[in-house]
Amino acid sequence: MIITLDAMGGDTAPQSTVYGAVWAARDFGIAIQLVGKPNRIATELAKHDTQGLDLQIIPASEVIEMEDSPAESVRSKKDASVNVGVRQVKTGKSHAFVSAGNSGGTFVASLFGLGRIKGIKRPALTTAYPTRSAHRICFLIDVGANADVKPEYLVQFGLMGSLYTEKVLGIPNPRVGLVSNGEEKDKGSKIIKEAYKLMNLAPFNFIGNIEGKDIPAGLADVIVTDGFTGNVIVKLSEGLPKGIMETIADDFKTPTTLIVGGALITTTVVAMYRTKIFGLTALLSGLLTWRKINEIKKRFDYREFGGGALLGVDGVVIVTHGRADAYTIRNAIRAAKQAVENDIVNTIKEYL
Amino acid sequence: MIITLDAMGGDTAPQSTVYGAVWAARDFGIAIQLVGKPNRIATELAKHDTQGLDLQIIPASEVIEMEDSPAESVRSKKDASVNVGVRQVKTGKSHAFVSAGNSGGTFVASLFGLGRIKGIKRPALTTAYPTRSAHRICFLIDVGANADVKPEYLVQFGLMGSLYTEKVLGIPNPRVGLVSNGEEKDKGSKIIKEAYKLMNLAPFNFIGNIEGKDIPAGLADVIVTDGFTGNVIVKLSEGLPKGIMETIADDFKTPTTLIVGGALITTTVVAMYRTKIFGLTALLSGLLTWRKINEIKKRFDYREFGGGALLGVDGVVIVTHGRADAYTIRNAIRAAKQAVENDIVNTIKEYL
Repeated sequence: MIITLDAMGGDTAPQSTVYGAVWAARDFGIAIQLVGKPNRIATELAKHDTQGLDLQIIPASEVIEMEDSPAESVRSKKDASVNVGVRQVKTGKSHAFVSAGNSGGTFVASLFGLGRIKGIKRPALTTAYPTRSAHRICFLIDVGANADVKPEYLVQFGLMGSLYTEKVLGIPNPRVGLVSNGEEKDKGSKIIKEAYKLMNLAPFNFIGNIEGKDIPAGLADVIVTDGFTGNVIVKLSEGLPKGIMETIADDFKTPTTLIVGGALITTTVVAMYRTKIFGLTALLSGLLTWRKINEIKKRFDYREFGGGALLGVDGVVIVTHGRADAYTIRNAIRAAKQAVENDIVNTIKEYL
Repeated sequence: MIITLDAMGGDTAPQSTVYGAVWAARDFGIAIQLVGKPNRIATELAKHDTQGLDLQIIPASEVIEMEDSPAESVRSKKDASVNVGVRQVKTGKSHAFVSAGNSGGTFVASLFGLGRIKGIKRPALTTAYPTRSAHRICFLIDVGANADVKPEYLVQFGLMGSLYTEKVLGIPNPRVGLVSNGEEKDKGSKIIKEAYKLMNLAPFNFIGNIEGKDIPAGLADVIVTDGFTGNVIVKLSEGLPKGIMETIADDFKTPTTLIVGGALITTTVVAMYRTKIFGLTALLSGLLTWRKINEIKKRFDYREFGGGALLGVDGVVIVTHGRADAYTIRNAIRAAKQAVENDIVNTIKEYL
């Protein structure tokens, strides 16, 4: 299997992209094509042990920057890394394309370069989202590609999301929920009410409307929404825990808390030293708590999921976060591999 | 000043409503009219010391239940507590109406009973939202009344929200932000892009588009959005911290953690006893941390804000959460008092 990576896309590219590619090539035993400026990629590759790995550089002289307008820059920068990467897939030289760059740019380049799957009205951007369910994640579609939608687009999002969640993420008979401002079927905007009716007749496990609070609770496995609301959901979910944690940190930075905290640490060390058994228990407990906290952090870490697929285009494209580090890139490549192995594109085609 | 309270509205009414009314009457020295079934209200009142308080019962034989359809039940249940309460304001027998009942019902009853302020196209439901800003809150408008909007409705939401935030919440020259799927002015659905242009010309401090992550960060004081997205924001903000906390709790409930935790507590008690100074510091630190945690909980507690106003109707109406307890009811009555004192209805009229 060959996966093409946009080596120039993302806030810390090409350092993190090249590192992630090396990591993935070793862990999954696949060939990786690195698209971008050859000398910059080569400099990064030289920092790693690439012995025995199948890594190839595909030259691309331009880059679509984060602040570039997607539609314009994809047209004007013919030799941009996303355009070159998508062409590798189109011409059959690669099985999938992965990018952490400007997601609008990747979307437009993929749409122009690969075209839509016949019958799909609008491709959509997706992401995995951590939940409390047994599967630990749900799958959000759309998270930004289509700010304006029609009811029939939402039904297709439900279908594509259901197939991806079952075939690639491995969740059997996924529950598909439609985001609305109330659980009842008469709740929602005009478009949502119409989509509800159509989804009731669709060939997937539609469980009805779900509210904002039901998403992290894990009440559905596939969360169908328009790209506007989906973007608000993803960004708010990123900002809310951050806001709460920072406020707590602010509040704990008062002189009283710092003095008392310091005194407590000092006397704890003294107590640990004087009473041997307490010292041992505290140490053991500290280690276990630390391990536990790391497990939980990992569970709510978007990096684990490696990014979402761009569904509805005629090829496998994985779009990951602009802030992706090497580990996220590695996992995004894994997601691409799984999508290819499970032949998601043909699965969608067969269902239409 | 006289405030009318829907004594029958809310999950724990009339216990919590009557308790909240007694509390508010004592704390703020105002007259309160309790609307609902007289014997049930009297039974609750008898549980409290109401000596010297101005509390009056206004009979209403019906109640709009949480599961009732707002439009139908407001029409069919003429003697519902919300209808009777709104009539008190309409006929000048009271200055404001407060309800924790079916918010759609309160909305419809207020719209029918009081009418719109002349020039206002659509009244909106609002809420205060905790943030990290110096003001500690922002003001969300609309959070559920209008699932479908037009650009000009959003501009009016910005105007009403700005006036309420300045006059009633006391935030000078509030920054008004428009929720979108990107900060740039060309981001958004068709309606949002059009609203952006109109808001740039409006007589308030418009700061542009804001993303989901900017809301808890406190980048704007007034958050303008349609009722569909506003509902998703509020419900997700309620569900997300809950989901994370519950997952952490689940994860900590393993046998290993429980055994180690128990051992640590036992040995800490032993260590506290053996080393006197550690015992004292631990106790002091425990107390301070406890106080701090309570402060933070209060800060992120929707109950502090007592609910949002229903803006755009020709009278003061405060709608609070169905799960409101006595403290929330007390604070909702305080919000009504502040809205009356600052004459929010006439302030909006003057601006139109």
